[in-house]
Amino acid sequence: MIIAVDAMGGDKAPISEIEGAIAATKSLDVKVALVGPESVLKQALSKYKYNPEKILIESAPEIVGMREAPSLAIRKRSSSIAVCGDMFSEGKAQGMVSAGNTGAVMATLLVKWRTIKGVARPAIGSLLPTTSGVVLLIDVGANVDCKPNYLLQFAQMGKVYSQHIIGIENPKVGLLSIGEEESKGNELTGEAFDLLKNSKLNFFGNVEGKDILTGVVDVIVCDGFVGNVVLKFGESIGAVLIKWLRMEFEKGIFTRLAGAFMKRGFMKIKKKIDYAETGGAPLLGINGVCIISHGKSTSKAIMNAIRVATEFVNHKVNEHILEEITNNHTM
Amino acid sequence: MIIAVDAMGGDKAPISEIEGAIAATKSLDVKVALVGPESVLKQALSKYKYNPEKILIESAPEIVGMREAPSLAIRKRSSSIAVCGDMFSEGKAQGMVSAGNTGAVMATLLVKWRTIKGVARPAIGSLLPTTSGVVLLIDVGANVDCKPNYLLQFAQMGKVYSQHIIGIENPKVGLLSIGEEESKGNELTGEAFDLLKNSKLNFFGNVEGKDILTGVVDVIVCDGFVGNVVLKFGESIGAVLIKWLRMEFEKGIFTRLAGAFMKRGFMKIKKKIDYAETGGAPLLGINGVCIISHGKSTSKAIMNAIRVATEFVNHKVNEHILEEITNNHTM
Repeated sequence: MIIAVDAMGGDKAPISEIEGAIAATKSLDVKVALVGPESVLKQALSKYKYNPEKILIESAPEIVGMREAPSLAIRKRSSSIAVCGDMFSEGKAQGMVSAGNTGAVMATLLVKWRTIKGVARPAIGSLLPTTSGVVLLIDVGANVDCKPNYLLQFAQMGKVYSQHIIGIENPKVGLLSIGEEESKGNELTGEAFDLLKNSKLNFFGNVEGKDILTGVVDVIVCDGFVGNVVLKFGESIGAVLIKWLRMEFEKGIFTRLAGAFMKRGFMKIKKKIDYAETGGAPLLGINGVCIISHGKSTSKAIMNAIRVATEFVNHKVNEHILEEITNNHTM
Repeated sequence: MIIAVDAMGGDKAPISEIEGAIAATKSLDVKVALVGPESVLKQALSKYKYNPEKILIESAPEIVGMREAPSLAIRKRSSSIAVCGDMFSEGKAQGMVSAGNTGAVMATLLVKWRTIKGVARPAIGSLLPTTSGVVLLIDVGANVDCKPNYLLQFAQMGKVYSQHIIGIENPKVGLLSIGEEESKGNELTGEAFDLLKNSKLNFFGNVEGKDILTGVVDVIVCDGFVGNVVLKFGESIGAVLIKWLRMEFEKGIFTRLAGAFMKRGFMKIKKKIDYAETGGAPLLGINGVCIISHGKSTSKAIMNAIRVATEFVNHKVNEHILEEITNNHTM
């Protein structure tokens, strides 16, 4: 299997991408095609020891900036994103990973790959840590204004991902809202509630903001605006709490001592949070395989995203999504 | 000044309400009217020492349950909520505090008090702690489906509150969205952005989920659905992190020791978070004075909400809102 990696995507590109790719080829049965400007990649790669049969270079001279408008980015036909997409379409790669401009990745792949038959909109799922495991929050930013039927499909796609990648037999699906009762919420969630209730999904009902990290459900559905706010708020809180604690701990000798002790505990918590993050966020519903990695991805995060891409292929997630959507069509 | 306190509101009613009221009369120049079933309050009060000239009882035989639908609750004309509202209308109290069913409080007061002239919708503001002070998030649940103009008015009302109650001279206002660029967001935030940009407000631009707790702005505007999800998510995170840390710390003797040391730091952080919470959430834009207290309010939270109600009256917040809305009318 070959996974194409957008080598010019993340904040630390191409270093994280190269190191992540090399690590992946060592621990997994996979070849990685690094996609980007050939000379840049060759020079950067020359500093590493790697198996040249497993690390390939695919030329893509153009680069898409992190703040570039998707509508402009899709015109760059030889960008690292576009070339990754083409490799999949031409059968040269079975999946791709990008830590680049998410909007540009989405827009480019929608043009090249389209959606899985029956899927109205692709969505980005993100794994968050819970007290008992992980929860898939979907959508976290692909669709800011949603129709009720999109949310039903996010739930169906999230269920498939949770089943085949996380290994939950009968995933519980919650609808993110502002009260437990069916009547609580906005227009969108009110209508989505009815669709979810009448579907064959294992629908738990509404969940509130306070329930996101408690593990009461396996999949939480929301529009991409709310999901993105929650995701970014959540990502920031660890750092803020640590800053506050540090401010407290600097005040006295006892607390300073405690601070030193604490470091170990915090590092483990950080790992727990990272675990979820480094898996990468699958782009679900697109007719291809793309794992979106955080812009701040480390080499470990890239390696894990490559791993998830191979699992996505091996577990035939898209076939299962097609089946789920076809058998439970509601449009 | 007399503040009416819905004595049957919170989870620990009427104990928190009674103790909070007594504490308030000791530290502030205020009288408190406890509103609820007379016999219940008289009996509960009999266990306390208090100044009977400062603690009054106002009879309200009916009670509104926490899960009661607002449409049903407003029919209870002698509920503790309704009687608090009437006391204000009749000049028997200058403000009220309730830790009860927020939807019922909103609905009841909208009927009794209406909005301040020119205000389309009242909104609930909630103070969150930041690394440098507090930020007012508005709306956190009063309006789930908003029009762009509502968000502009939330910003105007939030600005007034931040100025006159928090003491920020020229509050910076941010619009909660999913990217810093003007173009990022949904339909609602796109249109609201234009209104805010063209207003006389000190508009900072979009802020993301990650910016909420960093103190980059003093007021953050959002629709009540998103605001409520963020608020409840945020409230839950402290408890979740502490649970995770505890799980880590129970694993070894060193880390267990560290856990004991840490407690002190955590208690201070908790206080920081509580500080914001215990101020109570003002209902802004309603033509009266009502501070909404958390359902889990302690006596300290009630006392602080009473204090905020007196400040709200003394600083003539509603007059300033009327002025702000009248001078910057955009409907």
